[in-house]
Amino acid sequence: MSDRPIGIFDSGVGGLTVCKAVNELLPAENIIYFGDTARFPYGTRSVETIVRYSREISAHLISRSVKMIVIACNTSSAAALDRLRDELPVPVIGVIDAGARAACARHVAGPIGVIATRATVGSESYVRAIKKIDAGREVLQRQATLFVTITEEGLIDSEIARLAAREYIGDMHLRGVRTLILGCTHFPLLKRAILDVYPDLDLVDTGVEIAHEVRATLHKKNLENIGDPSHKGIIELYASDITDTLQRLKNMFFCKNDAKIEKLIISG
Amino acid sequence: MSDRPIGIFDSGVGGLTVCKAVNELLPAENIIYFGDTARFPYGTRSVETIVRYSREISAHLISRSVKMIVIACNTSSAAALDRLRDELPVPVIGVIDAGARAACARHVAGPIGVIATRATVGSESYVRAIKKIDAGREVLQRQATLFVTITEEGLIDSEIARLAAREYIGDMHLRGVRTLILGCTHFPLLKRAILDVYPDLDLVDTGVEIAHEVRATLHKKNLENIGDPSHKGIIELYASDITDTLQRLKNMFFCKNDAKIEKLIISG
Repeated sequence: MSDRPIGIFDSGVGGLTVCKAVNELLPAENIIYFGDTARFPYGTRSVETIVRYSREISAHLISRSVKMIVIACNTSSAAALDRLRDELPVPVIGVIDAGARAACARHVAGPIGVIATRATVGSESYVRAIKKIDAGREVLQRQATLFVTITEEGLIDSEIARLAAREYIGDMHLRGVRTLILGCTHFPLLKRAILDVYPDLDLVDTGVEIAHEVRATLHKKNLENIGDPSHKGIIELYASDITDTLQRLKNMFFCKNDAKIEKLIISG
Repeated sequence: MSDRPIGIFDSGVGGLTVCKAVNELLPAENIIYFGDTARFPYGTRSVETIVRYSREISAHLISRSVKMIVIACNTSSAAALDRLRDELPVPVIGVIDAGARAACARHVAGPIGVIATRATVGSESYVRAIKKIDAGREVLQRQATLFVTITEEGLIDSEIARLAAREYIGDMHLRGVRTLILGCTHFPLLKRAILDVYPDLDLVDTGVEIAHEVRATLHKKNLENIGDPSHKGIIELYASDITDTLQRLKNMFFCKNDAKIEKLIISG
């Protein structure tokens, strides 16, 4: 057992949905969250740049003595997970494997759909992760970059959101997709808009799924924080840029948790 | 006179519209363009961070012996122009003054409208620049962040673009705006979509306007590159991240100019 914190990082505030899910499932664990808001979004950057950013953040988290690292960002998981696993002295897990496993476990017929950022789609990481579990399964992917901005602009229940859902999901839906992985931490906030247009879709929220993987990993490595069951873990939130809209987004992704976000420049 | 290059920088590729306008008006001038694609977009970041990024880029351009610096990015012009002017040994001009002057010169009755990023709107820079020319003029502003993503995703002639135009411009138009400043280098690409919805708007393209200011400044300071009139200036393009979509965007913003974009990490 260990009371060292769990390190969670994301390209921005979207990963707070993961932070929230981990905290709900494992309330005794201490968490250090870092959102790279000064360099957000990662989803349109090159793999090389995403790997560099992910390494810088991981090095910082290791210096803060974290016992494991959770890559809450789909884009970063796709680009950097294998490398960070090789390089770092603690367990590293990413949202992609968790999402792929959950989608396959739904046992819905037809192809599995994935909507994500350009970088995640380009990496084919979801396709590989799903094929590793179910080699014959067809996977249809589509980049849905506009959904990120629509979410951050608070237009989650707008006609624009529904129009974008038709643009991004229409073709997949026609081709038989009924299980859809929301392959970006922002997209769970668009669930209602997506289901308004396509009510027969089964949506996979990778944030919820990875919390279970965190618990399993800590248990396996005997790293759980076991003690007084009423003990509440400390959550520290950091971001590389603090903007006027950060608080608004924090509340949107993390509900009205009182934790304050502090500024921390890692590089750049 | 001087054959030293003109330095132009932007948060990404949008400033290539400025680069193109300067090159068309002043074909003999050498140009070094830097797009900070690894840290794009600036429009949602804090003023402090935007100033830091702008200083890093300017220091690099100065080390390349530029004779003047053009801030092609509205967000950076709003946040950093005054400070860079104080700190740097060469003339520095920004798109905001040029846009404000052009809008006032249109002599169209009613308030002047401005659509821009959150940071530019929050800075009130266009409001101040317009009031300096025409103190009694009413200015209506609106952030239009979604337009940036819509442009970069190539959805410039889509129903989503027109719906976003209604969302962002509808209220201003109702309140009498007929002159609208496109306060972000991306927005000129949405001219058609905007005019489809509001054909009576007079749109101000700040990229075109600033090219004239570059010429005037070089002339005043005796820094023009005067020589053989058939001489063609050299254009060097740099970006801090090279992605698959960069070439597509380069062509969209810069037409099919043959100049290749090379990678240059300035910081971060």
